[in-house]
Amino acid sequence: MIIVLKPRTTEENLNRVIKMVETKGLEAHVVRGEEMTIIGCIGDTVRIDPRLFEVDQSVDKVMHVQEPYKLANRAFHPEDTIIDVSGIPVGGGHMAMIAGPCSVESEEQVIDVAKAVKEAGANMLRGGAFKPRTSPYSFQGLGLEGLEMLCRAKEETGLPIVTELMSGEYLDIFDEKVDLIQIGARNMQNFDLLKQLGRTKRPILLKRGLNATYEEWIMSAEYIMASGNENVILCERGVRTFETYTRNTLDLQAIPVLKKMTHLPVVVDPSHAGGKWWLVDTMAKAALAAGTDGLMIEVHNNPDCALCDGGQSLKPEKYAVLLEQLRRIAPIVEKTW
Amino acid sequence: MIIVLKPRTTEENLNRVIKMVETKGLEAHVVRGEEMTIIGCIGDTVRIDPRLFEVDQSVDKVMHVQEPYKLANRAFHPEDTIIDVSGIPVGGGHMAMIAGPCSVESEEQVIDVAKAVKEAGANMLRGGAFKPRTSPYSFQGLGLEGLEMLCRAKEETGLPIVTELMSGEYLDIFDEKVDLIQIGARNMQNFDLLKQLGRTKRPILLKRGLNATYEEWIMSAEYIMASGNENVILCERGVRTFETYTRNTLDLQAIPVLKKMTHLPVVVDPSHAGGKWWLVDTMAKAALAAGTDGLMIEVHNNPDCALCDGGQSLKPEKYAVLLEQLRRIAPIVEKTW
Amino acid sequence: MIIVLKPRTTEENLNRVIKMVETKGLEAHVVRGEEMTIIGCIGDTVRIDPRLFEVDQSVDKVMHVQEPYKLANRAFHPEDTIIDVSGIPVGGGHMAMIAGPCSVESEEQVIDVAKAVKEAGANMLRGGAFKPRTSPYSFQGLGLEGLEMLCRAKEETGLPIVTELMSGEYLDIFDEKVDLIQIGARNMQNFDLLKQLGRTKRPILLKRGLNATYEEWIMSAEYIMASGNENVILCERGVRTFETYTRNTLDLQAIPVLKKMTHLPVVVDPSHAGGKWWLVDTMAKAALAAGTDGLMIEVHNNPDCALCDGGQSLKPEKYAVLLEQLRRIAPIVEKTW
Amino acid sequence: MIIVLKPRTTEENLNRVIKMVETKGLEAHVVRGEEMTIIGCIGDTVRIDPRLFEVDQSVDKVMHVQEPYKLANRAFHPEDTIIDVSGIPVGGGHMAMIAGPCSVESEEQVIDVAKAVKEAGANMLRGGAFKPRTSPYSFQGLGLEGLEMLCRAKEETGLPIVTELMSGEYLDIFDEKVDLIQIGARNMQNFDLLKQLGRTKRPILLKRGLNATYEEWIMSAEYIMASGNENVILCERGVRTFETYTRNTLDLQAIPVLKKMTHLPVVVDPSHAGGKWWLVDTMAKAALAAGTDGLMIEVHNNPDCALCDGGQSLKPEKYAVLLEQLRRIAPIVEKTW
Repeated sequence: MIIVLKPRTTEENLNRVIKMVETKGLEAHVVRGEEMTIIGCIGDTVRIDPRLFEVDQSVDKVMHVQEPYKLANRAFHPEDTIIDVSGIPVGGGHMAMIAGPCSVESEEQVIDVAKAVKEAGANMLRGGAFKPRTSPYSFQGLGLEGLEMLCRAKEETGLPIVTELMSGEYLDIFDEKVDLIQIGARNMQNFDLLKQLGRTKRPILLKRGLNATYEEWIMSAEYIMASGNENVILCERGVRTFETYTRNTLDLQAIPVLKKMTHLPVVVDPSHAGGKWWLVDTMAKAALAAGTDGLMIEVHNNPDCALCDGGQSLKPEKYAVLLEQLRRIAPIVEKTW
Repeated sequence: MIIVLKPRTTEENLNRVIKMVETKGLEAHVVRGEEMTIIGCIGDTVRIDPRLFEVDQSVDKVMHVQEPYKLANRAFHPEDTIIDVSGIPVGGGHMAMIAGPCSVESEEQVIDVAKAVKEAGANMLRGGAFKPRTSPYSFQGLGLEGLEMLCRAKEETGLPIVTELMSGEYLDIFDEKVDLIQIGARNMQNFDLLKQLGRTKRPILLKRGLNATYEEWIMSAEYIMASGNENVILCERGVRTFETYTRNTLDLQAIPVLKKMTHLPVVVDPSHAGGKWWLVDTMAKAALAAGTDGLMIEVHNNPDCALCDGGQSLKPEKYAVLLEQLRRIAPIVEKTW
Repeated sequence: MIIVLKPRTTEENLNRVIKMVETKGLEAHVVRGEEMTIIGCIGDTVRIDPRLFEVDQSVDKVMHVQEPYKLANRAFHPEDTIIDVSGIPVGGGHMAMIAGPCSVESEEQVIDVAKAVKEAGANMLRGGAFKPRTSPYSFQGLGLEGLEMLCRAKEETGLPIVTELMSGEYLDIFDEKVDLIQIGARNMQNFDLLKQLGRTKRPILLKRGLNATYEEWIMSAEYIMASGNENVILCERGVRTFETYTRNTLDLQAIPVLKKMTHLPVVVDPSHAGGKWWLVDTMAKAALAAGTDGLMIEVHNNPDCALCDGGQSLKPEKYAVLLEQLRRIAPIVEKTW
Repeated sequence: MIIVLKPRTTEENLNRVIKMVETKGLEAHVVRGEEMTIIGCIGDTVRIDPRLFEVDQSVDKVMHVQEPYKLANRAFHPEDTIIDVSGIPVGGGHMAMIAGPCSVESEEQVIDVAKAVKEAGANMLRGGAFKPRTSPYSFQGLGLEGLEMLCRAKEETGLPIVTELMSGEYLDIFDEKVDLIQIGARNMQNFDLLKQLGRTKRPILLKRGLNATYEEWIMSAEYIMASGNENVILCERGVRTFETYTRNTLDLQAIPVLKKMTHLPVVVDPSHAGGKWWLVDTMAKAALAAGTDGLMIEVHNNPDCALCDGGQSLKPEKYAVLLEQLRRIAPIVEKTW
C-alpha cells in the first residue's frame, strides 16, 4: 500500500502518519521528493481499508498495490485450474458447452431441448427452475418441480445439469441433484449466499454482476473459495453501460484479463449479454476466438412461446449450425470439447 | 405496449403478429404509415415480456408504454405516503435524520455516538451489525452481538434503530428489535430476500443498487409491497459511473424523479456516495434543497480508528454544525424534523 | 510516479527498470518488501506516460501520484479565482445567473426573453446561435445572424451575452462581440479549438464532456490556460450513465470536488442535465446549496414552439419564482449576485 | 413517432395534442385504451425533436420509432458498401489490415515499421502526425513534418497511409496526401469538422466516441455523408465504462449491430481499447471472428522508447505471428485481405 502525503507536510505530521502505519502492523518506507513525499507500506495489507488513512489531514491519497485476493490469484497458482463437472473437464483447453432453455416450462419441453442440444454437441444442459425476474408479476419459474424436470432430462440424456440457486434454503437439494450450481449476476455480491456455498463441493458457476469490476468479481469467487469450495467457474454475461440498443455490453476483454489475474476457468453467456438471438452466434464465435473455456447458450424449441427471454433463444437447428462453425475455430485457439 | 413492424411487412405477416398479440389477451390497434406500421396493444401488458414479440421476423422493435409497477405508482396513489418509524414520521415534509457509526464496534462506542447525534438533533440511530464487505478478509461486523449493542443504545437514548439485514435467517430477530430494516445496495435485487420481507410490518429502507435504474429500484420496492409490506422508504446512495475520484456519483435528480414516479419517501445517504468525509456536509445540504425526506449520515467519535469506512465519517461536532445549517434551509423547502 | 514490480523480480531486472526511470530524468527510490518491490520516481513526471514502463516484462503496474495540471491547480493558487465577465464577477461567492433561450430564433424572441430574465434577476443572457445537433437534419442555429440578435438584446438590456463557439473560424468575431464564450460538452476535448482560445482574453465557459473525468475536464481547462487565456469558468451539465429516464445524470459532487482540485469557478446547467423542465428548479436549488458559482438556465417565452429543447425550458414567470427561492438560500451558503 | 398521453386525458386535451402533431405536418392516429391513449404520428419525423411534445401537460412520453438516419441506413441500401482506399477494397469480406506506430517519431522509424508490417501482411500504414493528447504538456506529434515522413514511407512500401485529422485547417493537405483520413474518438461529435469533410472525396475512418451510442455514431457518419462524402468506414475502439483495469471496454457486439443498422464497413482498433499490448492479439482474433472488416493495430519497432502509447504496441515479430493466426480464422468467417 502506498500513502501519498500532501505537499509541504511537516516532519511532525509525517511521523504521525508513520506511527499510524506501524500500529497497523506494517513497515513504513519513506520516499522524499521536492514536490511530494510518499510512504511505501510493506506487510499484509489485504485486510486494511485504505480509507482509514485518508482521514488524516496530511494524507493526500492512498493506493493499494497488492491484489486483495489470494486463493483465486494466478500469482500463487500459475497453471490453469481444471474443474470437473460430473465428468466433464472445464478449463485448460477443455470447454463447457452449456445449452438449454432460459426457463424450464414442462418435462416434455426440457427433454426435447436436451436431446436436441446433445445431438448438436452440447455437453451440459442448462434450464432455469428458480428465475430472478425484475418484476414480481413476471413468471418466477417452476421451482423444485422444474428441478425435477431437469433431473428427468439428465436421466434421458446423461447431460450434467446447470441451474441457478437463489437462496441458501435450497442448497442441500442442489448439492444432491445439480451438477453445476449457478449464482446469478444479481446475487454476485449476496455475500450471505456466497459464504453458504462452502457447504457443498459442487462446482459453482459465478456470473459477473452487471456493474462488477474484475476485482470485485474475483473477490466474490474468493468468498466462495475461502468458505471451503474452490470449484469456481467465472461467467461473463455482459455489463451495463450507456448503450441500450443491446441489453448489456459483452466484455470479451474479460477473458484474457481474468486469465491473467486468476487460474479459474472463464466461460461466456452471449445470450443474456446482447438479449437478441441474432447476436448469439457471432458473439459465441468471438468469445471462442478470445479463449473462453465455455459457452452458455439459450436454446428453445419454440422461442415465440417461451415464458421468458424467448427473444434471445436459438432454435436447435441454429445451435447445431453454430457448433459446426465453432468446431472449425476451436483447434486454432487450442480448445476442445 | 407498441410493436413496430419492419418496413414493407406483408398483410400476411402483419396478421400473424396481430394474432400473436391477441393470444396474449391484448387488443391490437394497427396504425399504418408509408414508412412504418405500428400495432398499439391495449390491455394489461405488465406481465408480458416485450422480447416475446421481437423473435418474429416481421417485428422491428417493441416498446413498453405502461409502468410495470402498481402499488408504488404515484398515478394510483397521488398523495405522499408518510411512514411511521416507531413514532417518527417520514415523508410528506417530515424528515428522517439518521446518524451513527458505519459499524457497531463496542457498546461504549455506539452509546457515545448515539448520545452525541441525539444531542445534535438526529431522530434515528444507524449502525452496522452485519456488514456486506467486498473482501471475505475484511471485518464482517459483530452480528447479533452488535445488534444487542444497538438495542442498549436505543434504551439509553430512545432513538429508533436502523441496521442492515443481509439474510432472511435473521428476519424474525430484526422484526422484533429493529425499527427500520435496511436492505443494502448489493441486495437490492436479491429477490428471495425481498419476498421474505412481507413477513414483517417493520418499515424497510431500500437502498438503490449501484447500477439500478429508477424503474428497477421501484420494481424492487414493488416486490416488497406485493409480498405484503407496504412500508418502504427508498434511499439514494450514489450510482457507479466512469468517475473514480469519488466512490460513487450521487444522483440527486433521483429525488424529484422518484417523487413523480412513486408516493414513497426518498432519503439520501451522502456518506457512502462520495466516500469522503469532506463531501458529506455539502451534499447533505444539496440533498435537502432537492427535497429529500431524510439524510443518513455516518458519524464516528474517532474516525481514524473506525473498523470500516472511517474516511467517510463525520465527527459528532461537525455533524452538529451541519444540522445547524440544515435547520436554516429546511423551512425554505418546507421540511421539518 | 510509482512503479510496482512483479513478485520475485530479479536484481538484474530491477536494475534495468531503475535505469529506464533514470533515463527519463527521474530519481528512483526502491522500497523492498517480501511480497512486492516498488520504485518511487521523484521529479517532474507530468510529461511522462506511465504506459511507457508497463511494457517492461518485470513491471506489474505504474501509478501516477502527482496531478498532471499546474495552472488550474488549487495547490499552487489557494484562493478562489474571481473572473470578470464584462463587469460581472464570477467566483468567490459571486454568482453568474445566466438565462435565456436554448437557441436564438428571432430578434423579438431574444429581446423579450432578455427583458424578462433581467427583470427576474438574471445578470447574463444566454442564447444559442451556432447549435451542436446530433442530427445533420436538425435546426443548426441562425449562426452570425443569431449572434447579431443577441447583440441587439444586449444593447436593450445591458446583459452580457453567453453563446457557444463551435469553430476557430469565428473566434475573432466572438472575441469582439461575446462576453463569455461557451465551449460545449462535445468539444471539451477538441484540442485544436482549445489551443486557439489563447488568442482571446474573453472568459471561457468550459462545459464538462458527457464522459469526462474531473481530471480530464481540468486538463482541458489547463489547455486553454497554457495557451494564454487563464479566464476559465467550468460548467457541470450532467454526465452520461446507464440511467436513461433523465437525459443525463447531474453530478453535484463535482462542485466541492472541483473546488478542492482547482481555484476556478464552477457553475451548473440544470436544464441540459435532466432535459426536463420540471427538474430545473429543484436541481437549481440543490446546486446552489452545493456551492455553485452560477446557474445557467434555459428560459423561453413559448416553450411549446421552441425550435430546440423546448421541453427543458422554463417560462419567464417560473424563472422569476425560482430566483425568489434562490435568494432565500443564497445567504445561508454565502453566495450573492 | 408515438405520443403516449397521461391517464385520464380529456377529449379537449387530446384534441390539442392532435392539432400540435398536425401543425408539424404529421398525420395523427389515435389508439384508445382504458389505461392509456397513444397517438401514432405518421410522416417524416426525422427533423422533429420529441421533446417539443413533452412540454404539453397531457403528454406522458414521446417515443421515436423511425431511425433518424437515411444515407447510412441499411434499410435503404441492403448490400454492404465496399470502400476503395487507394486500391484496397474495405467491406463486403475485404479487410483493411492497418498497422503502424501510434505516433510518427522519425523517418527511419516509420519506414522501418512500414516495411516490417508490409512484410507481415498489412495492407495500410497508420501513424499519428497530429496527436490528440489529454495533457497540453504531452508530445503533440510532429505535425506536417510527420505527415511528410508518412508519405516517404508510402513511397518506399506502396502502403496507403492512414492518419488523424484534428482541424479543418489541414483538410486540403490531407485531401492531397492521405489515403484514409481518420477522425478521432474525441472529435466524433465535432460537427463543424464533420461538415467540412464533404470537401474531400477521400475515405474517412470515423472512430466511435468514448460514450457514443450506436445511433449517435451513425448520425456522425450521416453528417459526413450528408455533407457530400459517402466514403465512411466506422471504427470501434472501445467505450468508457466503470471498469478501469483496461483503458476502455471493447464492444464487439458493435460489429453485428452496426452491420444490421448500416451498410458501412466496421473496423476495430484493439490497441486503444485495452491499452495493453498483451490484450491485442487475443482481441484481434475475437474481432475477426465477430466479422470485422478490418483491424487497426499499433506496431512499434521499439515500444519501450515510444513517445506515446508504447505500452499498447506490438513488436513487428509479434504482429507477424498474429497475422498468421488471423489467416487461419479468416476463411471460416469469409474474410480476406
